[in-house]
Amino acid sequence: MIGFGAATAIEPAGEGRYETVLDAGYGMAEALNGGYLMAVLGRAAVAASPHAHPVSTAVTFHRVARPGPAEVIVEPRKEGRTAAASRVTLIQDARPAADALITTATLDAAAEPGWTGAEPPGLPRLEECTEFQPPTGDRGFADRVDMRFDRSTMGWLDGRPSGRPEVRAWFRLRDGYQPDAYALALAVDALPPVALNLGAQGWAPTVELTWHMRAVPAQGWLAVHGNGRVLADGWFDEETEVWDSAGRLVAQSRQLARVPRPRR
Amino acid sequence: MIGFGAATAIEPAGEGRYETVLDAGYGMAEALNGGYLMAVLGRAAVAASPHAHPVSTAVTFHRVARPGPAEVIVEPRKEGRTAAASRVTLIQDARPAADALITTATLDAAAEPGWTGAEPPGLPRLEECTEFQPPTGDRGFADRVDMRFDRSTMGWLDGRPSGRPEVRAWFRLRDGYQPDAYALALAVDALPPVALNLGAQGWAPTVELTWHMRAVPAQGWLAVHGNGRVLADGWFDEETEVWDSAGRLVAQSRQLARVPRPRR
Repeated sequence: MIGFGAATAIEPAGEGRYETVLDAGYGMAEALNGGYLMAVLGRAAVAASPHAHPVSTAVTFHRVARPGPAEVIVEPRKEGRTAAASRVTLIQDARPAADALITTATLDAAAEPGWTGAEPPGLPRLEECTEFQPPTGDRGFADRVDMRFDRSTMGWLDGRPSGRPEVRAWFRLRDGYQPDAYALALAVDALPPVALNLGAQGWAPTVELTWHMRAVPAQGWLAVHGNGRVLADGWFDEETEVWDSAGRLVAQSRQLARVPRPRR
Repeated sequence: MIGFGAATAIEPAGEGRYETVLDAGYGMAEALNGGYLMAVLGRAAVAASPHAHPVSTAVTFHRVARPGPAEVIVEPRKEGRTAAASRVTLIQDARPAADALITTATLDAAAEPGWTGAEPPGLPRLEECTEFQPPTGDRGFADRVDMRFDRSTMGWLDGRPSGRPEVRAWFRLRDGYQPDAYALALAVDALPPVALNLGAQGWAPTVELTWHMRAVPAQGWLAVHGNGRVLADGWFDEETEVWDSAGRLVAQSRQLARVPRPRR
């Protein structure tokens, strides 16, 4: 089992191309996790940029990506003093699996927020939270990522969805990899779909996900708060906020996904 | 003065290219409004797609776009039964002014939401709201768009910012153009920057904006609610929710912008 750093590593192959080997450990069933893919895309964007952090990442997922070799293509589109923008594509089997727009900039790790909105209701303490053991025996992701869930948001597991599209969890990587931009990319797409708490069942494919890195995260556990606003016409939205151990809002995301299909 | 429909019209020019003439009326000072540009990009994406609505639009703005001729290039990336994805670029003066990822799908105008979160606190009635007259005499946008602001969110105008990054307003087009996908694109970027209520001043360039169309809007006024979560290290986020006259959440957006520069 290789660590998160190695699993998201990229190798320059010239002219904005980067080679990578996607790791089966970050999958659930056949599909690799979208946050894992965003971490790989983010590394390529930063490698091709003069800046240190992917402050804005918008991704459209076209196809399920599978473990094994893949390529990332970075096309620089604008380079400014403060930020640089690029189009970034994940290619597998000679087809685009995901397209992204990534803006890089360099955040100051010592910057204090000028203003922050209210912290969300606190998560229960770690020891009061529950580990979710995937029922299928499909342990890949759970072997890499240590998540401790607020039980009050996990009623769907026992057939008692809460009726509120909320899921909350503590998050860390099991290999000791500390929070950074790429761990945040993983964290914003690591929760089970909030729509499960509205009675939806099964796999909820993400169509689009945009996330913003708002601060350089401190070491330690991350708190991930997932919410949604509307489920309608086969679509639902899911927002996450990620707070670090120093109590700062370090990442925000919203995704648009398809309502999970009824189980057969 | 031409209407919003004509001002956002595109002309197919072959091979995924569309020509347009950007209208000075949707500018503030030298820069054309980002929402106006998204309306033009959305029309091109839909024209090139088998689907009717731009359900997801993520845009990175590279340069200020100016009134006059421009071109939109649409590259289809994935076409599925439910949705189609494309990369869409606005070109002006032979350079990309904005890059977008747009997913189209066809929303059912009769669909009832399966679940919707709480409606935000109501806006005051129209006649209790205030019209914001741009102080510079730069009337373009205000001549096209009729916005009536909740006075409690406009303290920054008189040098008394509320300290809360909120702006709320009623919204309609003066020419009678009724809400649709393109009017929603305009609405999600029509508010003054919410950071003005945190004491920021001046122009706040949007770096990235993602918006989702969640329902086909009813006729009449739209209510636009703007909020923010963090201002830090020169960056702030701004979220809008747009509610239609039937009380449905029809659009959601988040943008990442630079803190307005101090006035000289």
